[in-house]
Amino acid sequence: MLTLSGGREFSRIAAIVEALGDRGEGIGDDCAELPRGEHPALWTIDTQVEGVHFRREWLSWRDVGFRATVAAASDVLAMGGVVERIVVGWTIPACEEAASDEWLLEIAKGQREACIALDAKIVGGNLSAGPSLSLTTSVLGSAARSVRRTGARIGDRIVMAGPVGHAAAGLAWLQRGLDERDGERWVAAWRRPPVLRSASRFIAAHAHAGIDVSDGLAQDVGHLAEASQVRVELDGAAIERASFAASERARLEAEGLDPMALSLGGGEDYALVAAVGEDVPIPQEFVEIGKVVAGAGVAVVRADGTAYPPPRGFSHR
Amino acid sequence: MLTLSGGREFSRIAAIVEALGDRGEGIGDDCAELPRGEHPALWTIDTQVEGVHFRREWLSWRDVGFRATVAAASDVLAMGGVVERIVVGWTIPACEEAASDEWLLEIAKGQREACIALDAKIVGGNLSAGPSLSLTTSVLGSAARSVRRTGARIGDRIVMAGPVGHAAAGLAWLQRGLDERDGERWVAAWRRPPVLRSASRFIAAHAHAGIDVSDGLAQDVGHLAEASQVRVELDGAAIERASFAASERARLEAEGLDPMALSLGGGEDYALVAAVGEDVPIPQEFVEIGKVVAGAGVAVVRADGTAYPPPRGFSHR
Repeated sequence: MLTLSGGREFSRIAAIVEALGDRGEGIGDDCAELPRGEHPALWTIDTQVEGVHFRREWLSWRDVGFRATVAAASDVLAMGGVVERIVVGWTIPACEEAASDEWLLEIAKGQREACIALDAKIVGGNLSAGPSLSLTTSVLGSAARSVRRTGARIGDRIVMAGPVGHAAAGLAWLQRGLDERDGERWVAAWRRPPVLRSASRFIAAHAHAGIDVSDGLAQDVGHLAEASQVRVELDGAAIERASFAASERARLEAEGLDPMALSLGGGEDYALVAAVGEDVPIPQEFVEIGKVVAGAGVAVVRADGTAYPPPRGFSHR
Repeated sequence: MLTLSGGREFSRIAAIVEALGDRGEGIGDDCAELPRGEHPALWTIDTQVEGVHFRREWLSWRDVGFRATVAAASDVLAMGGVVERIVVGWTIPACEEAASDEWLLEIAKGQREACIALDAKIVGGNLSAGPSLSLTTSVLGSAARSVRRTGARIGDRIVMAGPVGHAAAGLAWLQRGLDERDGERWVAAWRRPPVLRSASRFIAAHAHAGIDVSDGLAQDVGHLAEASQVRVELDGAAIERASFAASERARLEAEGLDPMALSLGGGEDYALVAAVGEDVPIPQEFVEIGKVVAGAGVAVVRADGTAYPPPRGFSHR
């Protein structure tokens, strides 16, 4: 597992892998997979940095703790895993001693709330001084069967749990200084991403491949297609329906925001996407958004059959 | 496991534990202990931040990668564990793109070198942009029997592998701008802390309690004494002999540095300290530096029986 957060330089990952040589192992999926008795353990790490992944003016410290935990856990959920235990590296500015005691407490309370939603426990951590606030969350989970990015098969349907574009819409709403009440659902999605445990159980039971949407639907589905050596055709109309109601689209468009661009390119939704066989009944929390075909890359097809230009990945800023 | 690096506010740990409530578990030792088949797994996390734990003018990027890895692994070694797998959160300044590619490669090479010394592998990571460079290292190990801080018994001997005070002497040497060649051994100890795998195996086989010296001998032995509810009497003369030769002491004193203060209060040596029973033969790499008695706290006793004032813990700055 070697992932990026807040940076797009995939070449750097290749360089790290080369530098580690035979001391690097199994790099490339959302989580590292560890042999452990009958079922493999899944292990991941994720860092959220103030000013890059979150800005304190729009989040409570509890939100900061909650979303850092869910962002890390999402990699385990995407592989069909159950989150079990968490350790945290808290880095707190040394220069703001008085205030930061209170922040730390609130962050820990947000982490507690995420742990309740995940049915997980924090079993340790490290408290460090630093020039800026950051949280590094390492998550251990277990999987009856780990679902990787590599398993999508031609003929599979692409299904998605959780809306996409909401977090990006919420962030855009706040950045533009619009009335929070008019974008409440989106702002909430950005502040408190969903914890999709039952969707993860379905993935564990039935999916051929899975991934979480942290960097934007088009880009993350692109990773799945590339790892599986297939092409994915996404159904633009289905994604549109699954993401925003007609009235919501109108409200976004009135502010100059493109709902489809938000859905395809917006990050930090932590929706789960999976490739499943044709005969599997799809539970209600999933929607079918595309199909796996021969070839490479991702295309987004409009209702009229024309291609929608795929947006670039979300940059977390 | 909940540890501090670069900060001394133990009250914050207590506050975090309280905020986590029933979602926190087993906090208090160097590593979290996870049930896993016959032997427990040990799990730890450690963050090293530029300007707090390292300064680039005195370290190569390889050194930075090496020592961040050893610092985290040391918690596993102190509990008698074998380091198995590592994940890393690399946070790299976004503002220095061109240079930082080269840094990252060199850091990864240093991590590779530490992995070779530890016989461990890096199985994943997360690459993130951030305002300053930091490395968070999470380490999983295994232990035939995990040796905690809590097990020291009255009558035990306190033994130590690895010198103490060398890293602090090396850092002081660099801070004063003295000729590196005259303090080569100490500067090397600071840049490349030792990897004490055989000492760790002895701890696993024979120790009642163990801890690594990251914050200063007196302070870390104090943690062991407190956790074990005993008092430790350290033998000042034995520590002095184990740390610096007479000629080295003279050289340090000529620069106004107190060798004993460095040995008792200097951090980042990653020496291993253990409490062992009276009848266990002590291998050559350990020296006996004290004994466990009834009571509380730590005393350092001079050869003439008078007490040496215990220094405060090392602050990593």
